[in-house]
Amino acid sequence: MMHINLFLMGCGHHRAAWRHPQSAVEQLGDIRYYERLAQTAERGKLDAVFFADSNSAGNVSDGSWFYLEPLTAMAAMSRATEKIGFISTVSSTFYTPFHAARLVASLDHISGGRIGWNVVTSMFDVEARNHGYESMPGHAERYRRADEFVQAVLGLWDSWADDALRFDRQGHYADPAKVRPINHQGEFFRVDGPLNVPRPVQGHPVLFQAGASEPGRELAARCAEAIYAVAYDLPAAQSYYRDIKQRVKAGGREVYVPILPGLVTYVAPTEAEAKAKQRELDELLPVDASLRQLAMFIGQDCSSWDLDAPVPTLPPLEEFSGPQGRYSTILRIIETEQPTLRQLLGRLAAGGGHCTMVGTPRQIADKMEHWFRNEGADGFNLMPPSLPGGIEDFIEQVVPVLQGRGLFRTEYQGRTLREHLGLARPDHR
Amino acid sequence: MMHINLFLMGCGHHRAAWRHPQSAVEQLGDIRYYERLAQTAERGKLDAVFFADSNSAGNVSDGSWFYLEPLTAMAAMSRATEKIGFISTVSSTFYTPFHAARLVASLDHISGGRIGWNVVTSMFDVEARNHGYESMPGHAERYRRADEFVQAVLGLWDSWADDALRFDRQGHYADPAKVRPINHQGEFFRVDGPLNVPRPVQGHPVLFQAGASEPGRELAARCAEAIYAVAYDLPAAQSYYRDIKQRVKAGGREVYVPILPGLVTYVAPTEAEAKAKQRELDELLPVDASLRQLAMFIGQDCSSWDLDAPVPTLPPLEEFSGPQGRYSTILRIIETEQPTLRQLLGRLAAGGGHCTMVGTPRQIADKMEHWFRNEGADGFNLMPPSLPGGIEDFIEQVVPVLQGRGLFRTEYQGRTLREHLGLARPDHR
Repeated sequence: MMHINLFLMGCGHHRAAWRHPQSAVEQLGDIRYYERLAQTAERGKLDAVFFADSNSAGNVSDGSWFYLEPLTAMAAMSRATEKIGFISTVSSTFYTPFHAARLVASLDHISGGRIGWNVVTSMFDVEARNHGYESMPGHAERYRRADEFVQAVLGLWDSWADDALRFDRQGHYADPAKVRPINHQGEFFRVDGPLNVPRPVQGHPVLFQAGASEPGRELAARCAEAIYAVAYDLPAAQSYYRDIKQRVKAGGREVYVPILPGLVTYVAPTEAEAKAKQRELDELLPVDASLRQLAMFIGQDCSSWDLDAPVPTLPPLEEFSGPQGRYSTILRIIETEQPTLRQLLGRLAAGGGHCTMVGTPRQIADKMEHWFRNEGADGFNLMPPSLPGGIEDFIEQVVPVLQGRGLFRTEYQGRTLREHLGLARPDHR
Repeated sequence: MMHINLFLMGCGHHRAAWRHPQSAVEQLGDIRYYERLAQTAERGKLDAVFFADSNSAGNVSDGSWFYLEPLTAMAAMSRATEKIGFISTVSSTFYTPFHAARLVASLDHISGGRIGWNVVTSMFDVEARNHGYESMPGHAERYRRADEFVQAVLGLWDSWADDALRFDRQGHYADPAKVRPINHQGEFFRVDGPLNVPRPVQGHPVLFQAGASEPGRELAARCAEAIYAVAYDLPAAQSYYRDIKQRVKAGGREVYVPILPGLVTYVAPTEAEAKAKQRELDELLPVDASLRQLAMFIGQDCSSWDLDAPVPTLPPLEEFSGPQGRYSTILRIIETEQPTLRQLLGRLAAGGGHCTMVGTPRQIADKMEHWFRNEGADGFNLMPPSLPGGIEDFIEQVVPVLQGRGLFRTEYQGRTLREHLGLARPDHR
C-alpha cells in the first residue's frame, strides 16, 4: 500500500495561490481553516498532515506560508480528527533537546499516538539571528549537532519505561526504578533527564528526515523511520530511493523505511481542465518579481524575454558559476517540458524541484503507481498548489482510483501514525 | 468585580489527592480530562485556567503534577471552550525569546485572544541540567535575564503592526513597511526579528508575574499586567498588595494591575462536611514521608510525635538556622490554627504558604469578599485541593453566592482574557 501525506502550506504550494480570488488567505490565522484541512485529509484516509517550518518571517510581502506555529496548531488539529497523523518539522539547531522531546511527546499523548517529527538542521542566517547566533553553524557541524540532538531526544523518550506508571494509591505514582536519568553529555548538549512526560504512546513519535546532501543521507540512513524526498522525475527518485535503502541496509537496520517524494498535482476530469487550473495559478504570479528571481537563479537578465514564447536555450551546467542545484532543475524543466517563460515561472513557483503531475485522475494515478511499482516511491508527500481546493480535488478524484486498484487503504487499520506507516513500535531501550 | 482563575494541577493541589480512590490519576495523560476541567471552569465564568510548569520530572514516586506540556495542552483546551482564558507559566531561563514569543503568539491566535504568559525564572539545578547548564544562574542574573527576555518578547509581538496584513491579491500579502526587525542585542540575547507570527489578537498576551523577592517585585512592578501572589493571611496579603500597587505607581505606570493570591478551599454545605473533606485528604498522606519532610523543614526529628495531638511548641524564628520562609509559615500555621500534627502535615501538603479557607459557601464567600474589599486581593487563583471535585464544588456552591452579591460576573462581557481582566489592549509601539 502507498502512503500519502498532505504537506500543508498556507494557501497552497504555488507561491501565487493566495492571490486567487477564492483563496482562503484571510483565514490563515484561523485554526478552523487548518482543522478543516485535516478533516478533509482524514476523509481521504491519508496517513498524515505534514508541516514544514521556518524560524524567520521571510518575504512578508509575497509570503502567505507561515502564520500559526505548527506544534500548537497540531495540538488543536489532532483534537478535530481521530485517526490521521501529524508530522511537524522541528529544527535541531534552535530548541534544546529537552524542549523538543517534551513538546513532541506531549503532542503524542494529546493525539493518542499520531505524531511524527521531521528533523531538519535549518539553513538560513536570518533564522540563526533570531536565536542568538551571528550566522548558522557550518553544514558539517549542523549535522553532527542534529545527530546528537536526535540521540538525546530518543534517550529522553526512553527515560520512562512503558510500565513506569503505577497509579498505586497506597504506593507509587510511578515506579522510580523505571524512570531513569539519561545523563547525556556530548559535544553540543548536556541533558540529565528524565523527561517530565511519560513514554510517548508510540514509544517514539515517528522520526522523519529529508536529507539530500551526503551527511543528510547518512543521518537519514542511521536514524530516519520515514523520509520526505525531493525528486524531479522517476530516474532521480529511483536513484535516491535505491541509495537510501542501500545505506539503511548497510548500516545494519533491517527495517522498512518508507520514502515519500513531494508531489505537486493539478487534477481535473479532463487534461485540458487540469492544465487550465495550472495556467490560472501561473497567471496570478507577479511577473516582474518572478523575472527578477529567475534572473538571479540563471545569472542573466531575462526581463525582455517573451512571456508566452519558449524559454531561450541556456548555457550548460558546467558553464554556470552560481548555485548548481536550482540551475540544473531549471535546465531539466526546459529540456523535458519545453515550457514557455510563463510556464517556467509557474513551475518554479510551485514546488520547484519536485515532481509535478498534471492531468486526469487516471493519468495521475497511473504515474503514481508507476513510481510506486518501480522503486521510485513508497508513497507521496502531496503538495497541493492551492488549498483547500487542491486537496479536495485529490481525495475526491485520485484517491478513489488508487483505492480501486488496491494501492491505497479504504479505511484506517490502526489508530497511530506508526500503524498507518507500517512501522513497528520501538522497544524501550 | 473579582477575578477568579482555576490554577490547574494534576489531581489537585493536595499532594495526596491522587491517592483518593476516586481520583482521576489514570487520566492525567488524557487531554479530555483537561478539556473537561476547562469547560467546568468556563461554566463557572472564571477568568482563566492557570498552569504552573517545571522543567524536571520531580518526585515521580509521589508526583502526579506534570504530564502534558502546558502550551500544547492549552491549544487543545482552548478549542474545547469559547470564552475562558488560559495562562501558562513559561520560564525565561530555558527558551529563547523567539520561541517563547512565537508559541504564545500562536496560541493567542488559535484561542482568539485568550492567552496569558506567567513569566518565571525557574529555580532548580535539576531543571538547569536538562537544558545544558551545570547549575542555575544566580538569582540576580536570572532576573536581569528575565527582564531582557520580556523586553525581547514584547518587541517581537510588536514587530508586526496591527494593520500589517493586507491580503491585497494584486499587491502585498503584508505591508513590508509595517513588519519590522527589532534588532535586539542585549546582555543575554540576540534577536533580530521580526517574529513569524502576526501581532497577537490581544496585542500582547497578558503578562502575569509572581515575584515575591525584591527583584521579583521590581520586575512585577515594571512589566506585570496581573500578579499571582502568595499570601498566608489577610495582613500578609495586604502588605504585598499595597507594596506592589505602590511600586507600580512609583514606576509611572498608571494602570490597574490585578493581584490574585492563591487560595485553597474546602467547601461543603456545612462546616463539618468541609472539614471532613480536608481530613479525608490529609489521611491519605503517607505519614513517614511527610514526617521526614517536616523534620527537614523544622530541623528536628518528629517521628515520635503523636499524630493526633497538637504540634509541640517550636523554637522562635530567630533561633532557627535553616531556610526562613517555610519555617515562618509553619510557625504561623501553628500559632493561628493550633493544628494536630496530622493537620499540619495536611496543610503543608496543600498549597503550604497559601491561604486556606474551609467552610460553607457563605463562609468562604465572606472571607473572599473581606479580602477583596480590604486591599488584600483583586481576585484569587483557586488551588482546589482535589480535582475535578474541588472546582465543581467551588463553582456550584461559592460562585453563585459571589454572583448574588454582585462580586462576580454572571456572564462573560468580552471574548479575550484581557477583557475578562479589565485590561486595555496595548497600543503597537
